[in-house]
Amino acid sequence: MTKKLGLQTIEFKDTVSILSTAAIAGHREGMGPLAKYYDKILEDAQWGEDTWEKTESKMQKTAISRAVEKAQIDVKDIDYIFAGDLLNQCTSSTFAFRDFGIPFLGLYGACSTMAETLGLAASMIDGGFANLCAAVTSSHFCTAERQYRFPLEYGGQRTPTAQWTVTGSGGVILGKGDNLPCITHFTVGKIVDAGIKDANNMGAAMAPAAAETILTHFEDTNRVPQDYDLILTGDLGKIGKSILIDLLGQKGYDMSDNYNDCGCMVFDINDSDIHGGGSGCGCGAITLCGYIMDMFRANEINHVLFVGTGALLSPTSTMQGESIPCVAHAVAISAK
Amino acid sequence: MTKKLGLQTIEFKDTVSILSTAAIAGHREGMGPLAKYYDKILEDAQWGEDTWEKTESKMQKTAISRAVEKAQIDVKDIDYIFAGDLLNQCTSSTFAFRDFGIPFLGLYGACSTMAETLGLAASMIDGGFANLCAAVTSSHFCTAERQYRFPLEYGGQRTPTAQWTVTGSGGVILGKGDNLPCITHFTVGKIVDAGIKDANNMGAAMAPAAAETILTHFEDTNRVPQDYDLILTGDLGKIGKSILIDLLGQKGYDMSDNYNDCGCMVFDINDSDIHGGGSGCGCGAITLCGYIMDMFRANEINHVLFVGTGALLSPTSTMQGESIPCVAHAVAISAK
Repeated sequence: MTKKLGLQTIEFKDTVSILSTAAIAGHREGMGPLAKYYDKILEDAQWGEDTWEKTESKMQKTAISRAVEKAQIDVKDIDYIFAGDLLNQCTSSTFAFRDFGIPFLGLYGACSTMAETLGLAASMIDGGFANLCAAVTSSHFCTAERQYRFPLEYGGQRTPTAQWTVTGSGGVILGKGDNLPCITHFTVGKIVDAGIKDANNMGAAMAPAAAETILTHFEDTNRVPQDYDLILTGDLGKIGKSILIDLLGQKGYDMSDNYNDCGCMVFDINDSDIHGGGSGCGCGAITLCGYIMDMFRANEINHVLFVGTGALLSPTSTMQGESIPCVAHAVAISAK
Repeated sequence: MTKKLGLQTIEFKDTVSILSTAAIAGHREGMGPLAKYYDKILEDAQWGEDTWEKTESKMQKTAISRAVEKAQIDVKDIDYIFAGDLLNQCTSSTFAFRDFGIPFLGLYGACSTMAETLGLAASMIDGGFANLCAAVTSSHFCTAERQYRFPLEYGGQRTPTAQWTVTGSGGVILGKGDNLPCITHFTVGKIVDAGIKDANNMGAAMAPAAAETILTHFEDTNRVPQDYDLILTGDLGKIGKSILIDLLGQKGYDMSDNYNDCGCMVFDINDSDIHGGGSGCGCGAITLCGYIMDMFRANEINHVLFVGTGALLSPTSTMQGESIPCVAHAVAISAK
């Protein structure tokens, strides 16, 4: 049924299809270049809720509900939902699905979560444990900013390398289907800590982890960058993207033609507040669930390597003077 | 290879053996009745580290290192490590394994984490994706208390229903082996929110989730409580345990003979500070990895249902007036 290549990459021999995706995006993201690919753009940061945390849960709930509609399935037929987010104790996810009645598996991978949920959900289907799985993640600028940095009311200045947390949620339904994009490989990353201690420069911290996972993926699968129409990290931002290109270049891999980072795609490049680029679990999630899946449906791309990159720090670890451990997980998606 | 029974329970057809376990326990836990089953008892809350968070990471690292030694494997041969804990952004786990060079999958299930890591690790082996997996979790009284409740220096009074977070870490190595206890089933729980809002009464909040998962397990497998030598929840404490017995009794299941809760076993019953009983990811972890596995090795038990129970709240959700969503995951373990 399946074959494990090398040490870190699973190759799915059975077809694990992406039946549907849905992307819920914030207001600012809705002014960005990928706006037309989102299923829903929020009119404001609250979306009718009395706390931003409830808004973020509502975004996850809506992403999965919309993906369920598009897949024309019954939500009760989902065998397992894999979900995670950036909030302490992952409450965006747990509160989102408390009324859904679906077996729930919570994950934490910081901004690598979309790739981690997809890879584990695909493994459960390919392993013969499930027919239908859901994968979902989210982030919200206002919940993240006040948890990780400062109260928003404080109006603190941000450093040039700081990234802007995307308000967004992406949901995916995986199962068996004909003529749909499939998840073909899952490369599980190791934790890499390059010694970066600046929590406002997460791109530089995450780039070595992304490089490690992408190199391992190439070695395990005997593939090269040119085997993909697009290699997409989420989310290194401008600085991390340029470091990753250098790191892979030093290993002989030319990423200049077909590599991009969700953090560099999601916002209007003239939006000066964004600084280093987009970040947050929702950044990769809405880019994959919106733009990328639309490109697959339009037959404009056939092979994508989606690499979720997570900075596994906490405000406590930063205050204790620790460096930032990072991880990247990769899923390869191919048109059927 | 495998068969999915009903909706929520995976039956592992291949043998997924518990090659080894290790339990690292805190000082107070080392004065409890299960002390002789622990691999290491800390002399104090710091264990030579300058923060409690670093101590907790060291406990996870030591639990896995000790389990690796006992299984007589090379740590580099572990295909995947599944890890999680209670700290914001799961930093006990991520900092523990940043130097291990093992593909890392982070989970968050609050106190259900030991069962969640074991179930997913077993699925990866049974699905054909791995030969060796590690599963680990931890909690620490001092890191949890200051994160979830009050600074320890404040010396706040605790309510009678409050549980005492266990300082401990349990690590497991899963693989293929002869004549060793095996994981035979994994029942993934749904989120259940019974409307309890008192964050100091988590046993009452979690008992309905535990009941739901145990009932589903019985229905999916056509088993009854008497098929197990021991059904073990982790960690409902005294109040939650008594509610669970009532809830299952109402459904016709008699749990009076062979049911216990790790939170009611781990501390000396004359230790009056403990109030409602033990809690925390480490409570179920050290009880399973110490006492229970020793009973298997001594052929004193043959069939155990281990049910991890998690309260999926955060201090933010509590302050926002939310009730407590809970989840329970069950793994069945049988002597080979």
